[in-house]
Amino acid sequence: MPQASEGPVPVVVMGLGFIGQNIVRAVLASPELKLVAAVDPAPRLLGASLGELVGREGIKLKVRGRLEEALGKTEGAVVLHATGSRLPQVAEQVLAAVKAGCHVVSTCEELAFPYLRHPELAERLDRAAQKARVAVLGTGVNPGFVMDRLVATLGQVCGPVRHAQVVRRVDARTRREALQRKVGAGMSEEEFFARLEEEALGHVGLVESAALCALGLGLDCDDFEEEVAPVFAEEDIPGGAYLVRKGQVAGVAQTVVGTEEGVERVRLELTIAVGAEEPSDRIVLDAEPRLELEIRGGVAGDAATAHAVVNAAPRVAAAEPGLLTVLELPAGR
Amino acid sequence: MPQASEGPVPVVVMGLGFIGQNIVRAVLASPELKLVAAVDPAPRLLGASLGELVGREGIKLKVRGRLEEALGKTEGAVVLHATGSRLPQVAEQVLAAVKAGCHVVSTCEELAFPYLRHPELAERLDRAAQKARVAVLGTGVNPGFVMDRLVATLGQVCGPVRHAQVVRRVDARTRREALQRKVGAGMSEEEFFARLEEEALGHVGLVESAALCALGLGLDCDDFEEEVAPVFAEEDIPGGAYLVRKGQVAGVAQTVVGTEEGVERVRLELTIAVGAEEPSDRIVLDAEPRLELEIRGGVAGDAATAHAVVNAAPRVAAAEPGLLTVLELPAGR
Repeated sequence: MPQASEGPVPVVVMGLGFIGQNIVRAVLASPELKLVAAVDPAPRLLGASLGELVGREGIKLKVRGRLEEALGKTEGAVVLHATGSRLPQVAEQVLAAVKAGCHVVSTCEELAFPYLRHPELAERLDRAAQKARVAVLGTGVNPGFVMDRLVATLGQVCGPVRHAQVVRRVDARTRREALQRKVGAGMSEEEFFARLEEEALGHVGLVESAALCALGLGLDCDDFEEEVAPVFAEEDIPGGAYLVRKGQVAGVAQTVVGTEEGVERVRLELTIAVGAEEPSDRIVLDAEPRLELEIRGGVAGDAATAHAVVNAAPRVAAAEPGLLTVLELPAGR
Repeated sequence: MPQASEGPVPVVVMGLGFIGQNIVRAVLASPELKLVAAVDPAPRLLGASLGELVGREGIKLKVRGRLEEALGKTEGAVVLHATGSRLPQVAEQVLAAVKAGCHVVSTCEELAFPYLRHPELAERLDRAAQKARVAVLGTGVNPGFVMDRLVATLGQVCGPVRHAQVVRRVDARTRREALQRKVGAGMSEEEFFARLEEEALGHVGLVESAALCALGLGLDCDDFEEEVAPVFAEEDIPGGAYLVRKGQVAGVAQTVVGTEEGVERVRLELTIAVGAEEPSDRIVLDAEPRLELEIRGGVAGDAATAHAVVNAAPRVAAAEPGLLTVLELPAGR
């Protein structure tokens, strides 16, 4: 009989922004995990009641400022980490958790596949994790699921894949305000391109998804090209965190194309815009047999990312030590 | 960087019926595997040219009658096994392969989750596999993918699942003649129920899928009930291996419901009938967030089963020893 887990896995949530708070709530709903602490370095949160912060009664925990204090005598904990999208910004936090003997599951988008943009950091994290006998994973819904792990899973029932296409359309009104701002909703065209230049705009992690997708399907892409373009509002769009007026930017359309010796093998198209019509996730694998999958409405990002992290935690705690990708995770809970 | 595999894995295909021949062709298309032998106990196939049998030139192998002869000095081979649906019929073959030091990936439907119907055989296989340090897996498209592994994978991005429903509709005209006969196409109602009584009709493995589904979603079902009903042809249906006349049986509609203390948690509905309209695979998870996935046209069973077996083989060769389920397989190739 497949093994049942041996009691709940202790977890520490690190980073108590919007996603981190969702993670806390998802942990509380999971019979597989036990919340032992929550950490955020922001002075305004120090000592705050976690229960009040996330709107759940009966949690006695207070927010701690540092992981070391929070851990106490807990052993084999998994740190559920949600503090930033760029790996160089968060690598020291992840390393500190690893050195404290914790497994890490992080929403850091660039950690989902760091070998492409940050090979040296990836190697450093992998070495540190091996040495500490813990596992480290970057995941979420995107990157981490709809444009990579799910695609690779679908590829398990077909022959050699000639081409993979994934189209994800997200109505940003269903997402947190921070994301609406991050995709440029309400900006002028000039502002959009100025912020894009500063790398302060758009979705992080599409190239990482494309690389995971290729690896998971056994495709040998040697180049990935990304394009980011604004989507404009064709009329006033209410219903988001704020009104977006006709002619303003409504969001982004990002495309990554992965090629092998100049031949396109992977195409990921992601639109995140307020008012985006017919939100959905679609995967098409050109293979034998040809496969077309659709998730109507798409996988809702903010809630689903928290659950992706929570559901991965027990698997990561049981994994071989080192830096993992979602492609190595098993299917089941 | 995630490990690349160390050269192709040697495989032996055992059972050269329709599915076994598809497996041979899928092996030839996979860069991860190397076909070293093919085995079938049928005297009419003994010594036959495998290349002629599967319609592929350049294969020098002849069909062998026994695994031991076929293996020669090959070490660490994976036997791709496709000889029967019922575990008691094939368990000795699987055990023999295990004792010969081979991993096994089998299309035997009852092996996909043998703990429910054949707990003693399951334990015997697990012990033998542990002892021989090899891994054994039952997989395919159904059971093994659309109604279990894919469902569990989808469940990775939501909270506690209240209910899971999977509806699979297959137009049996797109499948092998043996399957059209197995679902009763062309029979009278009396003949259908007589064959059903003998357990000689219908899809094997739906209860196994339901059990996998529940396990993979963290649902604690304590009972599974199966119902099998005929689907009748409302008009003459051409286009299959033979004409099915109006009023004859066109195929089966099977349902398995898994309950927990009397509350329905899992519902799998499978229709396989000649002329079934709008073939598709649909999954609905009632959870936070609610998820609805559809594969238009459905995953074509015969080709996809062969590829599921082939894509699982390198993962099984690298797995911990013992009896596995598809829930333990990683997402990627």
